[in-house]
Amino acid sequence: MIRMQRPESARLFGTAGIRGSVKDKVTERLALDLARAMSTMLANTGQVIVGSDYRTSSAELRATLLGGLLAGGIDALDAGFLSTPILAFGVRTSGADSGIMVTASHNPPEDNGMKCYSHQGREYVPEEEQLLEELICQHQFTDVSWDHMGALGRAPDLTDLYVDRLLDLMQPLRRRLRVVVDCANGTTYNLTPLILSKMGCEVISLNAQPDGRFPGRPAEPNPTNLVETCRFVRSVGADLGIAHDGDGDRLALIDEKGRYLNNDTLLAFFARLLLTENGSGRIITTIDTSSRIDKVVISSGGTVERTRLGKTHAMLDREDRETVRLCCEPWKIIDPAWGFWGDAIYAACKVVQALDLSKGVVSALFRGIPDYPQERFFFPCPDHLKDAAMTNISNVLTSEKGVLDVSKLDGVRVNFDDGSWILIRKSGTEPKIRVYCEGRSPARLRQLARKSSGLVKKSIGAAQRAA
Amino acid sequence: MIRMQRPESARLFGTAGIRGSVKDKVTERLALDLARAMSTMLANTGQVIVGSDYRTSSAELRATLLGGLLAGGIDALDAGFLSTPILAFGVRTSGADSGIMVTASHNPPEDNGMKCYSHQGREYVPEEEQLLEELICQHQFTDVSWDHMGALGRAPDLTDLYVDRLLDLMQPLRRRLRVVVDCANGTTYNLTPLILSKMGCEVISLNAQPDGRFPGRPAEPNPTNLVETCRFVRSVGADLGIAHDGDGDRLALIDEKGRYLNNDTLLAFFARLLLTENGSGRIITTIDTSSRIDKVVISSGGTVERTRLGKTHAMLDREDRETVRLCCEPWKIIDPAWGFWGDAIYAACKVVQALDLSKGVVSALFRGIPDYPQERFFFPCPDHLKDAAMTNISNVLTSEKGVLDVSKLDGVRVNFDDGSWILIRKSGTEPKIRVYCEGRSPARLRQLARKSSGLVKKSIGAAQRAA
Amino acid sequence: MIRMQRPESARLFGTAGIRGSVKDKVTERLALDLARAMSTMLANTGQVIVGSDYRTSSAELRATLLGGLLAGGIDALDAGFLSTPILAFGVRTSGADSGIMVTASHNPPEDNGMKCYSHQGREYVPEEEQLLEELICQHQFTDVSWDHMGALGRAPDLTDLYVDRLLDLMQPLRRRLRVVVDCANGTTYNLTPLILSKMGCEVISLNAQPDGRFPGRPAEPNPTNLVETCRFVRSVGADLGIAHDGDGDRLALIDEKGRYLNNDTLLAFFARLLLTENGSGRIITTIDTSSRIDKVVISSGGTVERTRLGKTHAMLDREDRETVRLCCEPWKIIDPAWGFWGDAIYAACKVVQALDLSKGVVSALFRGIPDYPQERFFFPCPDHLKDAAMTNISNVLTSEKGVLDVSKLDGVRVNFDDGSWILIRKSGTEPKIRVYCEGRSPARLRQLARKSSGLVKKSIGAAQRAA
Amino acid sequence: MIRMQRPESARLFGTAGIRGSVKDKVTERLALDLARAMSTMLANTGQVIVGSDYRTSSAELRATLLGGLLAGGIDALDAGFLSTPILAFGVRTSGADSGIMVTASHNPPEDNGMKCYSHQGREYVPEEEQLLEELICQHQFTDVSWDHMGALGRAPDLTDLYVDRLLDLMQPLRRRLRVVVDCANGTTYNLTPLILSKMGCEVISLNAQPDGRFPGRPAEPNPTNLVETCRFVRSVGADLGIAHDGDGDRLALIDEKGRYLNNDTLLAFFARLLLTENGSGRIITTIDTSSRIDKVVISSGGTVERTRLGKTHAMLDREDRETVRLCCEPWKIIDPAWGFWGDAIYAACKVVQALDLSKGVVSALFRGIPDYPQERFFFPCPDHLKDAAMTNISNVLTSEKGVLDVSKLDGVRVNFDDGSWILIRKSGTEPKIRVYCEGRSPARLRQLARKSSGLVKKSIGAAQRAA
Repeated sequence: MIRMQRPESARLFGTAGIRGSVKDKVTERLALDLARAMSTMLANTGQVIVGSDYRTSSAELRATLLGGLLAGGIDALDAGFLSTPILAFGVRTSGADSGIMVTASHNPPEDNGMKCYSHQGREYVPEEEQLLEELICQHQFTDVSWDHMGALGRAPDLTDLYVDRLLDLMQPLRRRLRVVVDCANGTTYNLTPLILSKMGCEVISLNAQPDGRFPGRPAEPNPTNLVETCRFVRSVGADLGIAHDGDGDRLALIDEKGRYLNNDTLLAFFARLLLTENGSGRIITTIDTSSRIDKVVISSGGTVERTRLGKTHAMLDREDRETVRLCCEPWKIIDPAWGFWGDAIYAACKVVQALDLSKGVVSALFRGIPDYPQERFFFPCPDHLKDAAMTNISNVLTSEKGVLDVSKLDGVRVNFDDGSWILIRKSGTEPKIRVYCEGRSPARLRQLARKSSGLVKKSIGAAQRAA
Repeated sequence: MIRMQRPESARLFGTAGIRGSVKDKVTERLALDLARAMSTMLANTGQVIVGSDYRTSSAELRATLLGGLLAGGIDALDAGFLSTPILAFGVRTSGADSGIMVTASHNPPEDNGMKCYSHQGREYVPEEEQLLEELICQHQFTDVSWDHMGALGRAPDLTDLYVDRLLDLMQPLRRRLRVVVDCANGTTYNLTPLILSKMGCEVISLNAQPDGRFPGRPAEPNPTNLVETCRFVRSVGADLGIAHDGDGDRLALIDEKGRYLNNDTLLAFFARLLLTENGSGRIITTIDTSSRIDKVVISSGGTVERTRLGKTHAMLDREDRETVRLCCEPWKIIDPAWGFWGDAIYAACKVVQALDLSKGVVSALFRGIPDYPQERFFFPCPDHLKDAAMTNISNVLTSEKGVLDVSKLDGVRVNFDDGSWILIRKSGTEPKIRVYCEGRSPARLRQLARKSSGLVKKSIGAAQRAA
Repeated sequence: MIRMQRPESARLFGTAGIRGSVKDKVTERLALDLARAMSTMLANTGQVIVGSDYRTSSAELRATLLGGLLAGGIDALDAGFLSTPILAFGVRTSGADSGIMVTASHNPPEDNGMKCYSHQGREYVPEEEQLLEELICQHQFTDVSWDHMGALGRAPDLTDLYVDRLLDLMQPLRRRLRVVVDCANGTTYNLTPLILSKMGCEVISLNAQPDGRFPGRPAEPNPTNLVETCRFVRSVGADLGIAHDGDGDRLALIDEKGRYLNNDTLLAFFARLLLTENGSGRIITTIDTSSRIDKVVISSGGTVERTRLGKTHAMLDREDRETVRLCCEPWKIIDPAWGFWGDAIYAACKVVQALDLSKGVVSALFRGIPDYPQERFFFPCPDHLKDAAMTNISNVLTSEKGVLDVSKLDGVRVNFDDGSWILIRKSGTEPKIRVYCEGRSPARLRQLARKSSGLVKKSIGAAQRAA
Repeated sequence: MIRMQRPESARLFGTAGIRGSVKDKVTERLALDLARAMSTMLANTGQVIVGSDYRTSSAELRATLLGGLLAGGIDALDAGFLSTPILAFGVRTSGADSGIMVTASHNPPEDNGMKCYSHQGREYVPEEEQLLEELICQHQFTDVSWDHMGALGRAPDLTDLYVDRLLDLMQPLRRRLRVVVDCANGTTYNLTPLILSKMGCEVISLNAQPDGRFPGRPAEPNPTNLVETCRFVRSVGADLGIAHDGDGDRLALIDEKGRYLNNDTLLAFFARLLLTENGSGRIITTIDTSSRIDKVVISSGGTVERTRLGKTHAMLDREDRETVRLCCEPWKIIDPAWGFWGDAIYAACKVVQALDLSKGVVSALFRGIPDYPQERFFFPCPDHLKDAAMTNISNVLTSEKGVLDVSKLDGVRVNFDDGSWILIRKSGTEPKIRVYCEGRSPARLRQLARKSSGLVKKSIGAAQRAA
């Protein structure tokens, strides 16, 4: 067997599964390998559902994954094109052993990716991903004899089932809200608009034609890509704007004035909402999110716990998961009472429901959530210098005056006694050191940013000289 | 066999097939009878495709029609939910012997209807409808022995095929046009927006969630129902607004200023366009359409022929159909070079294509088509007095001064030497006499309307006294 | 509304649902009425699955039933072509509210029928059938408003699921049994042969091509129709012959010598088998079955209860159903531990399993079950004389010498102290009085038959004179 | 790119596509490579249909092929499980550019294979296979950019269409023939029995349950594997026995006395039949078939042409194909008037039709076709000695007394003036030299076999010494 050597920095799995260019990373060969690796991990038995978004390379990867799973002794179900939350929902609902979603989420159209889900509909945790990665890199696949290969089937209509279940949870609206939904030419095109319409909204749809070339706008629902959508929301007098990425796992909100809502504010909103609805409990978030979440959670009677980036869902694997009210990280909202997956469609419905009940405008929903100024930037740093630089950074940072507490889960984060904080970490996939700052005031933010900036530059320089 | 007596005025087939309330007219029993009648007409052999729009009663009627056709010895293909033009397209493409579309087009949601199509995709002509009607009213259905009943199948995916064929005809756009498409919560929801997007438009979709309750707006795309859509087109700065009815056979246009386009002007536009594209020939229209069509056609080198209301497609049954460039009547545009059915989706694409090529605004496309003022009104008249009244009306009208020519195809229409005209006819379905006037100027229109009004009132009064 | 008058003797529902000629009884109109009646009974809400056998008229009735259910506000699922036991299985498994199977079972090909199943997969009991019959005869259907009509769907693949569940229950065979399966050109063609093959049998298939014309042999698996199959079983040296009817709810067995097995003996076999497997309990059977069942059941530690013809399943509606080990009647075997429906496919598998475990030949399996001689005959009797004749018959019969006990559930059955018995009853559907005798010896049978024959003739004569 | 070196003797493509063990030859990786190679050959555009037999590894290879084709820019249609002739038929009928059938035909169950078909439904010719092989071995696949990957679809129901077309060609039978059909647990299970039943046969089915483990008998329909079937045909008094392999491209016949019919005699029968039906013309066969074919063809007014083994279909690529009446080789019967593929289902129907018309028994159909005795054997010979040995063999053989003509298309075949012949050739896939002899009498055959045997042994010995 051929052994491929991969440098540490070229790891297959990133913060959200495997993702990259279909030209040289996410190829049909990698799909075959991932399928064989998962088959090996599942002891060459059981059932796996495979679905995809509408990217031009998605059907190809889906078919190849199905082939690889069957070759690995797994019964494989083709779920066709659907949204990522629905694939996760489908794995749990149908009693399958795992699921694979072919999507690169909000990446450019020339990329694609594959994301794995457990039988509960939870994204694979780091241990599971690491096992797959090792099996793939070492081509250690358990072979299956000719008479133990899997059977191929089609998944039942998961989208219909999902819509029914979700509508069962929601109340019919008491107001006729006008909502703009921007589907990013992705899988939500016949989903979020339909559900909101059934709930009673007047829906105006943008980019609601599935097209893997993303002709409407880039798939990432960030402020830059949504400038025009924001203007549109305001111009048509909508009560709310909702924007997705290509596979329906990201939610961006635009208020009645066409203003793009800070993502951390959205997370804080959900934390407060779910603590109110489901009672006191724990809010899991990542080390790079705002302390506005802590502020809101504490005043709502909850507690906050922080994890590494992209891995809040790993907390749902533990025994104490019953007390978790929300896992939230940048662009991911998991309400465990609904399901163990990030679900932007569900989240959109919850916001609309809350807006209807509030009787006010959408921006009023977020009042009471402070808007602390933030800054994010990075410095180039060769991989081999990262550790040395980080050691110095950590030493200096933790001994700063006014540091209240320190977290070293992923890089180093220091929280100051005034509620401001700095996080400095090395990038897992690129030759960079990243800096995140939040201050209680613009002046304080400027001070922290200047301090961090100087520290990182100096530390990289020192590491360079020492090397 | 049970014989049902129906008064003449309660005829089953109107100007567009059978249509009416599902409560007491378009019931599952009528569906069974229509299917048995069509089976009888087709000599209890051959293949029929059945499709429907998304009305809440459509699946019911579709299933029952399938049952009745099978009972009548016909192989029946279920085409599921689709647009009316696609059902017609599908009948022609697949070599079926006939098709039935379950739809009440733009009627309110509590209505439904059934429209029959020949193997060429042409709506049934009056002779065919009359035969069906007689068979139904007299319950004269040929029974089929147990071993000659039909086989049930599913039609292939006609929508995909239609989209491919239509896109093959269209050029990719050279401008990125912003188009608002209002789908009336009907069958075009994943069709017109998708095709226009593939052509290169930026599409904003309204009422693009299929819903037989028509929550967005009433299904008829008339100026009243589209007031808000017109305002919307203007507010978002769209280049063009397109509005359909519930089953995709009606097209309304809104210009860049949010102005609703007169339907006769749209017909005149298509007459000119197709004469230009396909060469000189005949334009078939109905007696109730504007003389602006004649004006435009003549100056484009074509000739105009007029038929009874709702029956322009009957001209495509004749041997000289090769010279027909367009059949057009209020809300129906048939380009025989594309197909023998009214097709609002195709028409929408043609307008967008023309707009792209013109390099100007959409309102500029219609320049050169005169906008003669029109008026339509009616007077109540019991059925038994209609004929007497009409005799008098006809006598007076045809002897008016300045009458250039007279048509008695359906009521009486007189064309005056200045291009103005009056049409007076009895309603086929209601106890009314209807009047249509068009003047070359507002003053002339007022004069004609006054004259007609007096004449009709006097004639009904005289008929009453004589009775 | 039209009211149809039906004489009592022309009742719609017989011993197994509605059945009759498609020419003048089981028409598309009756299908529509049954669907509307069931909708009314289900309060115009819920879900119903509709399936059919391969009769030439089955697709027609299935489609019309679907239409009628939708019109009645029911969500209707089309299950296509399948075996009757699988329809029943599917209703229970999928959580539907009821099911309708289109089949005339073993009737000639020009007949068809419709059988209704409850949410547990149990055939409708007499009370339910009577309600449907009244609603149909009086056309008392609750109308449903346009916006409450049902949604049409397709049932999941019930046959695959059924095969999986059944195979899970069975052990792989330890011998390679050669089995002839005669599928009567019906729905079992890809079912019993496949399951037995998967269990490890060598299968020889006869009439295993689905064909509603029954070209191979008449659909009823009686000794006359199976003469050739019996000869075939012997000539190919098979261990066992299995024959079905057209829809898979009847099972006939042929032993290794090509002998057709008495149906009552088969019932007794199952009674003994299930008492052995599942422990002591009650065996429900009908008044026309052999006392060999009682003999076997008692010696196996069970008790026998008798019901009217065709209605043993009604006992599964009662609270004490947990103690029922088997409902069996001529041609119907219900093992409540598997499901509440007669299931000839399951029964075939159980016989094969038992044969495998026995290590002997199949005829040895039935040893110990006595083979009391039986006779069945009838006398013509006009409907209006039936009651008078039966009164006399009952009086005479019950006062016979040696009568041990009397049952008047359906006609009159007297059991004599030597174990012999006579049952005399009026036919529910034809102008006949029917006689069933069983004697412990051929001589005793002759005596009973003579006695009954004389009694019935005399009683009809007396009734005639009195009238 | 990785370059795999393959020895000449381990060529991928043999006489019937790629075939071998799924463990180490026909793996999912090879499927991916074949798909990429075919995509490259088709210039990364067009449509390919992929189907498979029921082998346990077939779904796996089918899915992976679909993935590879899509990755190569090809629109791929999944045809599911079907018979090889139907895949070929489907490619031609649907206008696809090529087809791939996943099957190892009659090989053991642990093998699988892939066979390619041109747009006419013709197996790939050697030039096409060689190109694929080079592309695969050198991994020279044209990459396709992310936005040019193929679309995935499902093929329409090709089996239904095939059955309809075939039944259209056949006359209803005038006799009720009893036919045993042994389906080898393969794809014909619901095909040949059904068609023959529809034609009017009484069909007894053996091994008619699809099962990729071939539990009934080994898939190759040779005399050894059919001993029991032959006995069965006789014991049930059938008029005819028909046996297939696992994918429906092989036909073996058994006569009314249970005798297995020599395959060359079957070919001669078809030659005569088609010359009679379609008029004089050319019969293409391979160099290893009997001179009984020549005998029969010449007396039927046709001419015989011989090609290399497994490649008669290549003659259908030439301009003069109109005059070809039959391509036949061991186990392959191509009637170009029906289609350019070997079709055992079609051939079975033709035999049954001929039998019906003949009014006699099936063995009488083959009267007049002489049964010259044949022998086939081989000698081990290392690859590197083959050429030297063959040179000597050829020299000696062609200078034999009485040689009428010599063919060196594949090895050397000499025809003697009495009609007897010898063919000696090196195996393309194994270290062997193969000998085929046919004599006009048993004595003559013994003489030729002795002569060849001595010659080959001597030549290998000489080559060994010279090396």
